[in-house]
Amino acid sequence: MTNMQTDIAAGIDLAAGLFVSVGAATFDGIGYTRASYGEGEQRAHDIVAAAARDMGLVVETDAALNLWMTLKGKDPSRKKLIIGSHLDAVPQGGNFDGLAGVLAGLACALAWKQTGLQPKGDVVVLAIRAEESAWFGAQHIGSRAMLGTLAPAIFDQAHRVDTGQALGEHMQQAGGDLARLLLNQSLLDRETIRAYLEVHIEQGPVLVEKALPVGIVTGIRGNRRCRRVVCRGAYGHSGTVPRELRQDAVMGVSELVVAMDGLWRRIEEDGGDLVLTFGQFFTDSRRHAVTTVPGEATFSFDARSHSSETLQQVEQALLDHAARISAERHVTFTFDPMTGDVPVSMSDRLQRRLAEGANILAIPAMPIASGAGHDAGDFAAAGIPSAMIFLRNDKGSHNPDEGMELDDFAQGVRLLNWLVEDLDAQPL
Amino acid sequence: MTNMQTDIAAGIDLAAGLFVSVGAATFDGIGYTRASYGEGEQRAHDIVAAAARDMGLVVETDAALNLWMTLKGKDPSRKKLIIGSHLDAVPQGGNFDGLAGVLAGLACALAWKQTGLQPKGDVVVLAIRAEESAWFGAQHIGSRAMLGTLAPAIFDQAHRVDTGQALGEHMQQAGGDLARLLLNQSLLDRETIRAYLEVHIEQGPVLVEKALPVGIVTGIRGNRRCRRVVCRGAYGHSGTVPRELRQDAVMGVSELVVAMDGLWRRIEEDGGDLVLTFGQFFTDSRRHAVTTVPGEATFSFDARSHSSETLQQVEQALLDHAARISAERHVTFTFDPMTGDVPVSMSDRLQRRLAEGANILAIPAMPIASGAGHDAGDFAAAGIPSAMIFLRNDKGSHNPDEGMELDDFAQGVRLLNWLVEDLDAQPL
Repeated sequence: MTNMQTDIAAGIDLAAGLFVSVGAATFDGIGYTRASYGEGEQRAHDIVAAAARDMGLVVETDAALNLWMTLKGKDPSRKKLIIGSHLDAVPQGGNFDGLAGVLAGLACALAWKQTGLQPKGDVVVLAIRAEESAWFGAQHIGSRAMLGTLAPAIFDQAHRVDTGQALGEHMQQAGGDLARLLLNQSLLDRETIRAYLEVHIEQGPVLVEKALPVGIVTGIRGNRRCRRVVCRGAYGHSGTVPRELRQDAVMGVSELVVAMDGLWRRIEEDGGDLVLTFGQFFTDSRRHAVTTVPGEATFSFDARSHSSETLQQVEQALLDHAARISAERHVTFTFDPMTGDVPVSMSDRLQRRLAEGANILAIPAMPIASGAGHDAGDFAAAGIPSAMIFLRNDKGSHNPDEGMELDDFAQGVRLLNWLVEDLDAQPL
Repeated sequence: MTNMQTDIAAGIDLAAGLFVSVGAATFDGIGYTRASYGEGEQRAHDIVAAAARDMGLVVETDAALNLWMTLKGKDPSRKKLIIGSHLDAVPQGGNFDGLAGVLAGLACALAWKQTGLQPKGDVVVLAIRAEESAWFGAQHIGSRAMLGTLAPAIFDQAHRVDTGQALGEHMQQAGGDLARLLLNQSLLDRETIRAYLEVHIEQGPVLVEKALPVGIVTGIRGNRRCRRVVCRGAYGHSGTVPRELRQDAVMGVSELVVAMDGLWRRIEEDGGDLVLTFGQFFTDSRRHAVTTVPGEATFSFDARSHSSETLQQVEQALLDHAARISAERHVTFTFDPMTGDVPVSMSDRLQRRLAEGANILAIPAMPIASGAGHDAGDFAAAGIPSAMIFLRNDKGSHNPDEGMELDDFAQGVRLLNWLVEDLDAQPL
């Protein structure tokens, strides 16, 4: 299949209107606030559900209040295609993170409806709850509840940052079926899902830098992270302690940072995938002074890569360099527990199909790694073939400035819809 | 002259008692507080002056309330020897910084008195006011007032940190002659001073490390200092901004720190004198995060050396490296104005005499640079031959833990008294 049978023009118009109406309903004066299992998220769900009903989709919610908007296929025994993303947004966040993916799905569904065509199998537009970790300190709550990968302890233990109320209470107040969720069983039969597809704004500068409207996501980087490392040496008079007797924490941490940066450069030169960040670095404001040798410095460490081996290599190098520097500079490094997520790959086959679709449709695109987590990662980890399309946006996300051109959105939807038609046309 | 004619034993006993009584009179519950032109400093002056009168010294104060305690010589036309230091101490400071030097002078004077010998020329024990910068934000006020090198504007502009009152008011309340000081003329005739000698605790770990009781100070390091440098790049998502597009302020500053540390090592290997300190280094606590590329980092810079050329070289290297890193990492460095003091050398001749004295007296000693400022630096800069003897103490200073063994003090006083006898014995 090379030419699209459906026309997305009306879908783009619909989405354009919904960006405005959801944005207006959740604007907080500075940015867009859509609390997970809270007021703003609910407003977005209500607006989107109404639009789905208007176009004749079957609208349902599951026990976790994820919103299933189904374009029914001819053959109910066929596996479903899911086009999903989330509708929550961080406090004073942007309008496009999450919402763009759900509206891309609605735009596709409308394209089918408007041309009077019915897919062979169900095409589900899925608005997932509570993707952002900003509210409950836990991410991807809706998709994990759906996939049966959310430990039930979280319902009591996670409290929303604005209300202080527990997740379980918020879910129940919003109408969720907590009793069902406490069983920790998948809310869907994975075998009935053919693929999970997600459109999302890029949260980095790569596509803008490369002047490309869309990216085909290769995978979601895993990470190794240490929220807090303390380097301790000895405070001293900056004028009176000679080099050989110094125990300078700033020198120690700086040497570690530069050594790790060198490793990063070499890994990149060897074709490896890595980003490395020491986002926090601070001497103790109660004791540091211009004329005092710094006896303590605290820093954070975040490494992300497609490759588990690379993450392992980087963590080991961090510890090795710290041990070497400890001995040479007479300082100690105390690491908080290291945490991590494993990398997740998007489906190779779906990536190849998207590349072919972009070629056929003459949409300039490139492969791109996702540095941030997405619901697609949970579907992929659950064994469901998954794919993501990024839309260029170099303003990051989780801020009112995050951006998206409607033309780029339309290119992304064209590519998404091509893949939906392509997959639907193929035998099971 | 090789053998001492006077005996310092009684002087050491006197000093031991005065360390206790001055300490008891100025203990604040945690450390020792002797505010410049304030209560604690005055108590120390009163106790010391009483002891000087008891042993028959002539006790006077000058317009700045520096305390002159003179052991009269046989020949009033001969140049005077000054043994000086200060009696103020920082808030919750130690008992020995300053006080040790004044009591060393009294111990010498008592040695002469007890043996019934009279020096050829006057030997003045000088208790200087307001050496510490902690109180008025300006250092060496007493010696500079005495030497006519204190700009009169300071009397109005400097305010004491605890009272908020101006320096001039405090001086007047304590009994100083502000009208005289406003003339900005030297309170002494430099031509009448033969030498200025000062005993002081070391404020660093060198003598303890070398297991030597005393050090012979070669000079007081000058410095180049920048209280605040801000490196600015761009904040970004730690997972989504690739290496080539990063503008990471922590990476930029860390690379600068490591480059300067390398220069320091090379200068030391070439026999140069330098200490280099980045005492403060901090990302912005309002914006930094574990998963955010740091867009800003602030740091301080302090370099000290005996050599003006080395200080110039180090400052230039700092600016050159910052410019290179700016270009390579797409960050900027904004420097506050650089400040500095020039290095001051102690008298070569007096250093040689002290080395000879230590040899004769079998006192283990080594040459040592002073990284901190002292009144001796002002006397030397005014053209008066000056010398300093350091007493081992690796607890720094300006804290209650600063230490000094009475045996080491006695060794320092023996060496000091040897030099006093040596200089007094020589023709003018």
